[in-house]
Amino acid sequence: MNIGLDMMGGDFAPREAVQGVRLYLNENSSPAVLFLIGDQHQLQPLLQEFDIPPAAVQIIHAPQVIGMHEHPTKALKEKKDSSISIGFHLLSSGKMDAFISAGNTGAMMVGALYSIKAIEGVQRPTIGTLIPKENGTTGLLLDVGLNADCKPENLNQFAVLGSLYANHILGIENPRVGLINIGEEEGKGNLLAQAAYTLLKNNNQIRFIGNVEGRDILLDKTDVMVCEGFTGNIILKLAESIYEITHQKKIHHDYFERFNFENYGGTPVLGVAKPVIIGHGISHGKAFQNMIRLAAKMIDTDLLGKMKASFGNN
Amino acid sequence: MNIGLDMMGGDFAPREAVQGVRLYLNENSSPAVLFLIGDQHQLQPLLQEFDIPPAAVQIIHAPQVIGMHEHPTKALKEKKDSSISIGFHLLSSGKMDAFISAGNTGAMMVGALYSIKAIEGVQRPTIGTLIPKENGTTGLLLDVGLNADCKPENLNQFAVLGSLYANHILGIENPRVGLINIGEEEGKGNLLAQAAYTLLKNNNQIRFIGNVEGRDILLDKTDVMVCEGFTGNIILKLAESIYEITHQKKIHHDYFERFNFENYGGTPVLGVAKPVIIGHGISHGKAFQNMIRLAAKMIDTDLLGKMKASFGNN
Repeated sequence: MNIGLDMMGGDFAPREAVQGVRLYLNENSSPAVLFLIGDQHQLQPLLQEFDIPPAAVQIIHAPQVIGMHEHPTKALKEKKDSSISIGFHLLSSGKMDAFISAGNTGAMMVGALYSIKAIEGVQRPTIGTLIPKENGTTGLLLDVGLNADCKPENLNQFAVLGSLYANHILGIENPRVGLINIGEEEGKGNLLAQAAYTLLKNNNQIRFIGNVEGRDILLDKTDVMVCEGFTGNIILKLAESIYEITHQKKIHHDYFERFNFENYGGTPVLGVAKPVIIGHGISHGKAFQNMIRLAAKMIDTDLLGKMKASFGNN
Repeated sequence: MNIGLDMMGGDFAPREAVQGVRLYLNENSSPAVLFLIGDQHQLQPLLQEFDIPPAAVQIIHAPQVIGMHEHPTKALKEKKDSSISIGFHLLSSGKMDAFISAGNTGAMMVGALYSIKAIEGVQRPTIGTLIPKENGTTGLLLDVGLNADCKPENLNQFAVLGSLYANHILGIENPRVGLINIGEEEGKGNLLAQAAYTLLKNNNQIRFIGNVEGRDILLDKTDVMVCEGFTGNIILKLAESIYEITHQKKIHHDYFERFNFENYGGTPVLGVAKPVIIGHGISHGKAFQNMIRLAAKMIDTDLLGKMKASFGNN
């Protein structure tokens, strides 16, 4: 399998990306072939410094970089030789099986949606985040910001995509799906949640267990939680801020350490036709390592094939 | 001023309600006249036990109680002699100036909306919560669940109501108002937030400072934060759960102690024509004391008169 890595994306690139490659190679006896996409003049000395043998990787020279604050569509159009543009080109043409970047999030989204495109039948691809539960387990929350306004059917599809991810990637068999809502019983919530409840209840591709209130999000009540991207993004950012505040106040506890979202590597764009993984701008070596592992697992388990089958494609 | 207190509402009533009266009388040399509404046979011995002189309070006998899990409208209709029904009757007829209960929340909402009614011009009354900021200050978040679906103008009105509350009750001059949103700049967010932004920006009754992301909610960026009741309720319940989880894990820190929402007493229904305060079911003496103080302050500062003036009533 061939996994493409944008070496120029993220606040600490390319050094931390190279560090991630080193960590990944260390742990794998027969690793994936890594396509390192970036400025070869910057990459060569780092690869030497980190003792990465030329045979272990393939360098794809990309003379341009899309900055973290550039306008996504404009930058993708104008910078054809950027690491992100080249990455999507290689992914869509089948030369790579997955593409990873911690660079400009908007450009990664636009590339995923327009150059890779949604799986047939998926109305709206989504991004999720892992939520650390108080009992040590981990749940998946989606959408966390890609889709600020949703229709009920979007949430229903997020549930299917999230369940497949939880099953094959997180290793949770028959994952419990909950609807983020206010109030416990059916019929509660806003109009969207009320309508989504009915769809989820009647969806035999998932194991729907009902509503998840704000107080349940950090408890081990469900494995997959669905909501529109507005609420999901507020939850994610609030959870991230709790980590920052506890750190700043020197409140140390294992539980809060798990709110360090860097631990989780990156987040895949679920519902697009090929594996695309987006990392935090602040990604360090460990995050890059985790993203490569995640990409390899998505390919190994044929997650995309299973998603396509779920939506009636073969 | 006459303040009515439902002595039968809450998980620990009437004992903790009586305890709250005791605490309130202790600290005030010329207190408000308290109307204690409840079963006099249960109240009399407790008043003696807590050494509350008969002259200091007025007992209003209410032989019925609306249970915590009764259907609100049905219970209010059928139990005319319940403490909540009598409380709203005395408030609407002008015999009391404020009404407080930690009882059935739904019945309190229905009573506030239908027996007291909204201030003329207020489309949707709202309930808020105090949010403990990491620097020790406190912000107001509204709506937290009364209005799961909102129009942009609702959020605009919540901003006006919240600003007046922050100014006169919390003592924050010229309070900063933020819109809960995803993304920092104007134009970000879902359709509701985008439209609400425009209204808030052009509202000269408030000091609008822009969007508040999830990561800003616990920071001292704004004094008043507005959103629809779906997102607000998720934020509130998530924050409450953090207090519970830290307690359970024995993570002790002053900051998390401030997430104990019992400290804050109760929440007023903002936008109805008279002061109505709803307490947590788990209210103890201190919470009742705080609710009486809050009611007295709402009357003292003529908060309702100021709200009416803001909406063009005189």
